[in-house]
Amino acid sequence: MLKDIIENSHNYQPGLSIDCVIFGFHDNQLKVLLIKVNQSEKWSLPGGFVPIDQDIDTAAVTILNQRTGVEGVFLRQFATFGKIKRNDNHFGAAVLEHLNIDQEKGKWFTQRFVTIGYYALVDFLKIIPNAVNQYDIVEWIDHKEVPDLILDHREILDKALDTLRTELNLMPVGYNLLPEKFTIPELQKLYETILDKKLDRRNFLRKITNIGILTKLDEKKSNVAHKAPNLYSFDKEKYDEVLKNGLNQGW
Amino acid sequence: MLKDIIENSHNYQPGLSIDCVIFGFHDNQLKVLLIKVNQSEKWSLPGGFVPIDQDIDTAAVTILNQRTGVEGVFLRQFATFGKIKRNDNHFGAAVLEHLNIDQEKGKWFTQRFVTIGYYALVDFLKIIPNAVNQYDIVEWIDHKEVPDLILDHREILDKALDTLRTELNLMPVGYNLLPEKFTIPELQKLYETILDKKLDRRNFLRKITNIGILTKLDEKKSNVAHKAPNLYSFDKEKYDEVLKNGLNQGW
Repeated sequence: MLKDIIENSHNYQPGLSIDCVIFGFHDNQLKVLLIKVNQSEKWSLPGGFVPIDQDIDTAAVTILNQRTGVEGVFLRQFATFGKIKRNDNHFGAAVLEHLNIDQEKGKWFTQRFVTIGYYALVDFLKIIPNAVNQYDIVEWIDHKEVPDLILDHREILDKALDTLRTELNLMPVGYNLLPEKFTIPELQKLYETILDKKLDRRNFLRKITNIGILTKLDEKKSNVAHKAPNLYSFDKEKYDEVLKNGLNQGW
Repeated sequence: MLKDIIENSHNYQPGLSIDCVIFGFHDNQLKVLLIKVNQSEKWSLPGGFVPIDQDIDTAAVTILNQRTGVEGVFLRQFATFGKIKRNDNHFGAAVLEHLNIDQEKGKWFTQRFVTIGYYALVDFLKIIPNAVNQYDIVEWIDHKEVPDLILDHREILDKALDTLRTELNLMPVGYNLLPEKFTIPELQKLYETILDKKLDRRNFLRKITNIGILTKLDEKKSNVAHKAPNLYSFDKEKYDEVLKNGLNQGW
């Protein structure tokens, strides 16, 4: 597919690519969707190029689908990366050689690519990675165990994670990531996993309650040895309202 | 200068541009730095192209300087705009005609440009706009009175303003924008101007005090008819700490 693109490079926006950072929450782990293409020793973020007749936001969704089979994810643009050294000629030349493309003909591929980063936090269970190309591998990998990535993909991943953590101060998370009924400790665990730190139980309870998006149910968690914790659900209407207006209507 | 660039387009990243949204605060107005180039009826954001041998962040600073004479501003990237329709052929063709450049030779200029938006909130008094080109006009314009802008520059400006408002929930503002000693009502006015809404006096006082970046001085504002309000200054060390760690260390 890359060979196809390089040989038809006039159909693609020159020097521009897109990379997707897809986070999933499962088993108290924050995982990230990575891909390993056959010619590479290293893993990379799922990414690709922008057709000249496509909006960049559309291209991002298409690329994610074509590389991983993932559909219907709401992708958010978070930053654009454009250091001159980000893809050195070396990398491009090696790929061209592997693909058996003449260096002169493949010149388009060896220029500096500016890449637009998109990210999403998705329901791990609803996203079944599926390499579209039989030679590729697509996998969920715990963000704490991410191996060496190609180019500056580590920097892109780190920036996406920073953005996700900042977003926690701006909007609620949890809907679609937790079961319909959940306990406060479960919700706290989600926050702790994303933030990668322990939170004070009482502070968390106070703050999360103040947002006003939780409905306390008349049920307790079953199968719990000692004091059974209360179950909650999201008040979807209020949740969406806060999502729209932001957490801190404070000023 | 544009003619120069188009005629030496091989030195520039193809299909990529940068636009800068510079906000300044003065006289209780939030102003934005706009430019009017001689061949245009309309105003635009100061922008330009990315040399192939420059990092995009460096290019942004250079472009702002070359178009407006403005130096030493800390620019933050906020979003990248890449709809296919954002610069139609029409616009490009008209510019080429005006510059007396053959349409075929100027083809580089009529492709779709993806533009990276950068913004800054600066001390109005320290930034003296200065058109580098004698045919251009550079001016501070109240953001509420911005005239028609070229291309999608209105959308870029609106998005920058949204980002600035969101940032108020993440970090303090005011240092460098207010005099060294200021009153709480003056600081509140800054917030109200950026947010474009009235804030409750007591709520504001409580919230801004809670951040812990203000030092109450043993002085009152002079030249005030009735009850003289207290003067404050920023505790720069704490201010920088909050700037670095964010406002909501809450979770």
